[in-house]
Amino acid sequence: MAETTVSIRVRYAETDQMGVVHHAAYLPWLEVARTEYLRQRGLPYKTLEEQGISMPVLKVEVEYLKPALYDDLLSITAKLEAASAVRFQFAYEVRRDGGKTLLCRGRTFHAATGRDGRPKRVPEEIMHILGGDLAKS
Amino acid sequence: MAETTVSIRVRYAETDQMGVVHHAAYLPWLEVARTEYLRQRGLPYKTLEEQGISMPVLKVEVEYLKPALYDDLLSITAKLEAASAVRFQFAYEVRRDGGKTLLCRGRTFHAATGRDGRPKRVPEEIMHILGGDLAKS
Amino acid sequence: MAETTVSIRVRYAETDQMGVVHHAAYLPWLEVARTEYLRQRGLPYKTLEEQGISMPVLKVEVEYLKPALYDDLLSITAKLEAASAVRFQFAYEVRRDGGKTLLCRGRTFHAATGRDGRPKRVPEEIMHILGGDLAKS
Amino acid sequence: MAETTVSIRVRYAETDQMGVVHHAAYLPWLEVARTEYLRQRGLPYKTLEEQGISMPVLKVEVEYLKPALYDDLLSITAKLEAASAVRFQFAYEVRRDGGKTLLCRGRTFHAATGRDGRPKRVPEEIMHILGGDLAKS
Repeated sequence: MAETTVSIRVRYAETDQMGVVHHAAYLPWLEVARTEYLRQRGLPYKTLEEQGISMPVLKVEVEYLKPALYDDLLSITAKLEAASAVRFQFAYEVRRDGGKTLLCRGRTFHAATGRDGRPKRVPEEIMHILGGDLAKS
Repeated sequence: MAETTVSIRVRYAETDQMGVVHHAAYLPWLEVARTEYLRQRGLPYKTLEEQGISMPVLKVEVEYLKPALYDDLLSITAKLEAASAVRFQFAYEVRRDGGKTLLCRGRTFHAATGRDGRPKRVPEEIMHILGGDLAKS
Repeated sequence: MAETTVSIRVRYAETDQMGVVHHAAYLPWLEVARTEYLRQRGLPYKTLEEQGISMPVLKVEVEYLKPALYDDLLSITAKLEAASAVRFQFAYEVRRDGGKTLLCRGRTFHAATGRDGRPKRVPEEIMHILGGDLAKS
Repeated sequence: MAETTVSIRVRYAETDQMGVVHHAAYLPWLEVARTEYLRQRGLPYKTLEEQGISMPVLKVEVEYLKPALYDDLLSITAKLEAASAVRFQFAYEVRRDGGKTLLCRGRTFHAATGRDGRPKRVPEEIMHILGGDLAKS
């Protein structure tokens, strides 16, 4: 399947005084899953940046269904939902209990830009790799 | 107008290596604006929590139009868009340059819950205050 | 040896516009290493908290020798340096490149407190476990 | 007096499940106070960076005396304790209740570096401004 799953242990610093994980703390987790998605396809985000390609976030949508708790061992799944040469859309799920309990669903929307922050077409060979995933998904 | 605006100076810690504010850093700003919205209406969120009412985030939607930069002096506007006794919806705008440049638009959706995390009806007198705002907005 | 090592991949959100990890981002890493130290000895911090024991941080000292970078795979080592029934002191090292390059050294100092935030003696059986480590270190 | 004080309202996102501010959240506050210290002397850190001068943190020492709480209105005082052309040392105090209650004391140690991360002498005119402060302190 054209998706990638990472494991994340909830850090104490990610909780708030409601006794659960603060809602902002999920965004870096989605980013970690997206990073690993790209790495697994041979496109480490670090390498993309070194080649002058950034993927800034244009929009996020996150639904919090059940709270994640300190020390929970979570699985975060990322998959590419749509891609053109200048736009990408990823979907995510955050789960607990070996994947049985869905805690959170999210989407992030990205542009491809150059170092100057202006839109930049992603090279063919990268689109080919990502497009293959879309075909399978 | 039934909205509240706060000023926030971007912190260095809120930037990332793209040279702009990381997208996750906006969520605490929206929270600050929401907190001041409630304080201005005589309902400090701290007091609500002490009375056993929490307003956990059920959903966030954030659109990033232009990047906020280190040391920018931003204005964040919050307003209540919808409210029932157990659900609230706030809308936000993040602006720079004395309000001229819109950087970001967002919405957060909240439940009202008790200390046990279960849905809880918000007391009449609070709804009265918030409802008045909706009528004006 | 009475120490515990964890692996942490640097998150994009942990960088700042200097192009390196922000200095505040190391503290949650030390906390993760401390948490795993306790878990390996059969004392998950979550369980300690459930038993009414907290270990708030009284002091931190962190030296930054070389910058950690986005996507670095780091190893963080924690060990208990001193312990009494109401005070604990941990030491840490953050390394890269399979442990060859030392990036950061730190210490954290903790009190043992009850739910009320007041000092609390740590039960004998816990001290026994931790004390054994000190003897070996 | 050669010191600068800033006001900071504690954000919900800065708390943890112990019901107090997480110890890592203080470091960005010290940074805010340091930034305002420089701005008041006509040396915005943003401008220094644009001129190719960075002041990375070499070491931090922070003592937590009493916990800061959600929604507290804090005053953070920064002063320069020592400076040479390539090293700076700042001291901080975090207070509540109109300055009456001391919550936290800290120190940060900095190098002056160029864009390449290597040590760089700070220009005479900047040293003159900062040195004047040391003479007065």
